[in-house]
Amino acid sequence: MSTTTVKAFGAESKTADLKEMNIERREVTANDIEIDILFCGVCHSDLHTARNDWGGSKYPAVPGHEIVGRISKIGADVKNFKVGDLAGVGCMVDSCRECENCKQDLEQYCTQGMTGTYNGNDTHLGGHTFGGYSEKVVVDQNYVLRVPENLDLAAVAPLLCAGITTYSPLKHWNVNENSKVAVVGLGGLGHMAIKLAKGMGAHVSLFSRSPEKTQDAMDLGADAVIISTDESHMKDVQSKFDLIIDTVPYDHDLNEYIPTLNVNGTIVLLGFIGSLEDKLSTVPLVLGRKAIAGSLIGGIAETQEMLDFCGEKNIVSEIEMIDMQNINEAYERMLKSDVKYRFVIDMKSLKN
Amino acid sequence: MSTTTVKAFGAESKTADLKEMNIERREVTANDIEIDILFCGVCHSDLHTARNDWGGSKYPAVPGHEIVGRISKIGADVKNFKVGDLAGVGCMVDSCRECENCKQDLEQYCTQGMTGTYNGNDTHLGGHTFGGYSEKVVVDQNYVLRVPENLDLAAVAPLLCAGITTYSPLKHWNVNENSKVAVVGLGGLGHMAIKLAKGMGAHVSLFSRSPEKTQDAMDLGADAVIISTDESHMKDVQSKFDLIIDTVPYDHDLNEYIPTLNVNGTIVLLGFIGSLEDKLSTVPLVLGRKAIAGSLIGGIAETQEMLDFCGEKNIVSEIEMIDMQNINEAYERMLKSDVKYRFVIDMKSLKN
Ligand SMILES: [Zn+2]
Ligand SMILES: [Zn+2]
Ligand SMILES: [Zn+2]
Ligand SMILES: [Zn+2]
Repeated sequence: MSTTTVKAFGAESKTADLKEMNIERREVTANDIEIDILFCGVCHSDLHTARNDWGGSKYPAVPGHEIVGRISKIGADVKNFKVGDLAGVGCMVDSCRECENCKQDLEQYCTQGMTGTYNGNDTHLGGHTFGGYSEKVVVDQNYVLRVPENLDLAAVAPLLCAGITTYSPLKHWNVNENSKVAVVGLGGLGHMAIKLAKGMGAHVSLFSRSPEKTQDAMDLGADAVIISTDESHMKDVQSKFDLIIDTVPYDHDLNEYIPTLNVNGTIVLLGFIGSLEDKLSTVPLVLGRKAIAGSLIGGIAETQEMLDFCGEKNIVSEIEMIDMQNINEAYERMLKSDVKYRFVIDMKSLKN
Repeated sequence: MSTTTVKAFGAESKTADLKEMNIERREVTANDIEIDILFCGVCHSDLHTARNDWGGSKYPAVPGHEIVGRISKIGADVKNFKVGDLAGVGCMVDSCRECENCKQDLEQYCTQGMTGTYNGNDTHLGGHTFGGYSEKVVVDQNYVLRVPENLDLAAVAPLLCAGITTYSPLKHWNVNENSKVAVVGLGGLGHMAIKLAKGMGAHVSLFSRSPEKTQDAMDLGADAVIISTDESHMKDVQSKFDLIIDTVPYDHDLNEYIPTLNVNGTIVLLGFIGSLEDKLSTVPLVLGRKAIAGSLIGGIAETQEMLDFCGEKNIVSEIEMIDMQNINEAYERMLKSDVKYRFVIDMKSLKN
């Protein structure tokens, strides 16, 4: 299979800083689209994969799954895109397409495992997939998204992971103008959850441990901030919320949030994948038909729906733009939550 | 308020055996219905209340909230019942009727707290309510159920608690002929869950630790029995079930069941109210949008729907009939799970 060499930024090992390198991209096959990458958002998964925090990382690791660019080439059978169109790529570039989940537009739960945009198995070239920290990417047309023309393109990039990860549960649990939604955690995911839930017309509260986040949350559109260390605040919101979007990426005690759900309410975990140390009380679950659930990104059709919704409602991420060369410093700042709210790489910098 | 003295069976203290006693029932007011009790099912809550296992028991404690009988008197404003009709009473005899849950026919989640059939606050006579271990009960017409004429009346009694407790989550989570349902625990609740889920057309499996329950489960209509201590059995059912009805009344590890849920599947806890000792993994929740929830009995309208459904489908509980005088022995056998599957008291015995 013929390939093109493109510039990328990646890690040679789990202890190495990311640096410039060359990778191969396949020539477009009949169903492929080649995208000139303009912007790439920086997700926590990028950092965890580069450093092998979850195990299973393959090297060189070229992260990046919040990709926005312009189409530079299309294969013979590509129908809905043309050269020059804006295009987006999110967390996956393929899936089995045949299992019951794929058939229901739930490719993120593909029983064969979806193909990650990076660190997945590259079924075309062998080896593993490389993400958006690169000049170009080649992706099957079925996993490419249309990007609304009216939005700030750099700020669209984080919608492809942080956006869909929060949009999907808001939709799945039927958030609308009658809903009371609360968000736990004000980072890349949390700030998108506030904007998207507001876009759907919900009343939105932020749970926060620190009063200094109040103004930030209000600026993003939140209707209320609940200081979770303040007993009287917590008392006021018992049995209040229809849905809690919990974006906290580390272990934390759910028992303080569950009683703030109304009957039939659900707390959805998006950030923490692991074991909950605190013993979970079933009391509010049974006595109020409350639920604890999780959710993983979203399907391709739903991601398109989310982008269209954001185009219509003028919703984008809050970002801080960086050059590719500053990615290692950006990772350090992310670990200290020192970003409002998402780094986005201006990929022009890689061409320099 | 004028009252009638009736015979009952109750406990004078948490350490006392149940024995015969007299209690007062109010004369019917305009909205009341007086029921001559024919049969009363024996629920685990009866035992726990008699012995103050959960705290808050009031004495004398007269348990019983699976009541079937015939109407002996009605108040002036009673519309849908007449003297001589069959009638049923379940776990509650009143609620605030004004909160958002009551207005949605979810009286079991009344924000003011429903009035339990026993151990609740008696708003008419003061003191606390007395349950169905008695000759008669007087209940507001809005909390009285119609009982299908075609069913074995003694075997209907357990539908009023065990039946509705399992029917409600099956309906809430949309069980139908395409559903794969599993049941954990084969007691009063579990055996009803199998019958009701089968009645709804689902494929039904029982999780069991002991192979000797296989025949029993099959006799009740189960399609399969999964021996949960058998690794290969468990492997076969990964990502299989849409709904797991967990009736186990003591702490147990949910981590072995959650991976057997399909994407969007839910495990519903009905039996255990307390803290789960085992640390809960969020991995299957996030990676498969699975959920853990709880559920409490059902509303009045839903209880009527369940009784009508059982009439239509010819579903009743499997019971062992006892005399009122044998209740203390029955409690001891229940603690050893030595009953298939519900004791029902023949209330004629109290008249002797
Ligand atoms: Zn991501
Ligand atoms: Zn698939
Ligand atoms: Zn009961
Ligand atoms: Zn109420």
